[in-house]
Amino acid sequence: MKIIFCTGNKNKFEEVKKIFEEYNVSAKLVRKNVKICEIQSESLKEISRVKAISAFEKLHKPLFVEDAGLFIKALNGFPGVYSSYVFKTIGCKGLLTLLQNEKDRSAYFKAVVTFTDGKILKSFSGICKGSIAKKERGNAGFGFDPIFIPAGYKQTFAENLELKNKLSHRKMAVERLVKFLKNYFKQVK
Amino acid sequence: MKIIFCTGNKNKFEEVKKIFEEYNVSAKLVRKNVKICEIQSESLKEISRVKAISAFEKLHKPLFVEDAGLFIKALNGFPGVYSSYVFKTIGCKGLLTLLQNEKDRSAYFKAVVTFTDGKILKSFSGICKGSIAKKERGNAGFGFDPIFIPAGYKQTFAENLELKNKLSHRKMAVERLVKFLKNYFKQVK
Repeated sequence: MKIIFCTGNKNKFEEVKKIFEEYNVSAKLVRKNVKICEIQSESLKEISRVKAISAFEKLHKPLFVEDAGLFIKALNGFPGVYSSYVFKTIGCKGLLTLLQNEKDRSAYFKAVVTFTDGKILKSFSGICKGSIAKKERGNAGFGFDPIFIPAGYKQTFAENLELKNKLSHRKMAVERLVKFLKNYFKQVK
Repeated sequence: MKIIFCTGNKNKFEEVKKIFEEYNVSAKLVRKNVKICEIQSESLKEISRVKAISAFEKLHKPLFVEDAGLFIKALNGFPGVYSSYVFKTIGCKGLLTLLQNEKDRSAYFKAVVTFTDGKILKSFSGICKGSIAKKERGNAGFGFDPIFIPAGYKQTFAENLELKNKLSHRKMAVERLVKFLKNYFKQVK
């Protein structure tokens, strides 16, 4: 059995692969980077579902996609669903500048994973609450990890990758996917 | 003869209507706000073309759509194609904060208009070069108009709507559309 994770992001693939190993998922995880139509929407779930359908139309094999975003309260949810574009343009530095005079630095990461085999279309989400650091700290992870501190901790995701891998939004969403897949594979066999 | 401008933005519709009147376009301009699938892409033209096709699939009548963005050099083109989302979240204030220590404040507005009647699919673009003001000035216009100063002038678009209506990116793109439409209507009649 094989399952495809459609993503252009190698870091995401490695993170997800580790979770699959941790849970002894029997299916082999394969990365494919297909050019898929991504819609503009303020809903991660909607983006994720359209992407999964569009990927399936190209590959015709069981697959999943993942979308995540960082939602900052004082910035009305910005950068949200456009996090990867915002990271590429203004980066962590830009977000820190925008928050320079903000007292409320609360934020959350959200991930949505959508699985489809052409018949079933199922989405799983995960949220990690926290706050934005005063400056970038740490070199691990990717994206906005150097400025995100999960609630109840002092280190950023980039300073403590173990912490990230334990309680991240992606971890939570993928755990839910894994639970679903274990049942799914039983039925398919 | 009737032509539909698909837009949820009343300000844009009024701007375009004025240009149609100025050029004595014989067709009646009608606004429709249809929910259309907008793709995520860093190309305005690609977004615009997919939107036009998607709108035609719903309306089956000659129509056009318009997409615009503000591209700031020092921010690697940010907010670009995601300008309307960025305006809604961090606004003019956010962009000014991001540019607070930047010497190079150059930027341009770009608009792409795409017409389709189900057979022809044609895009027209317009660019207006300029720079970002040190603070918001003026109340006219909409979006980022209060912080955009067109090259060769001192006032922002929001301080001088006449100036905006004369040399904006949207004006240029719509002028090109109008020239095309005048010929198009001759052939259709």
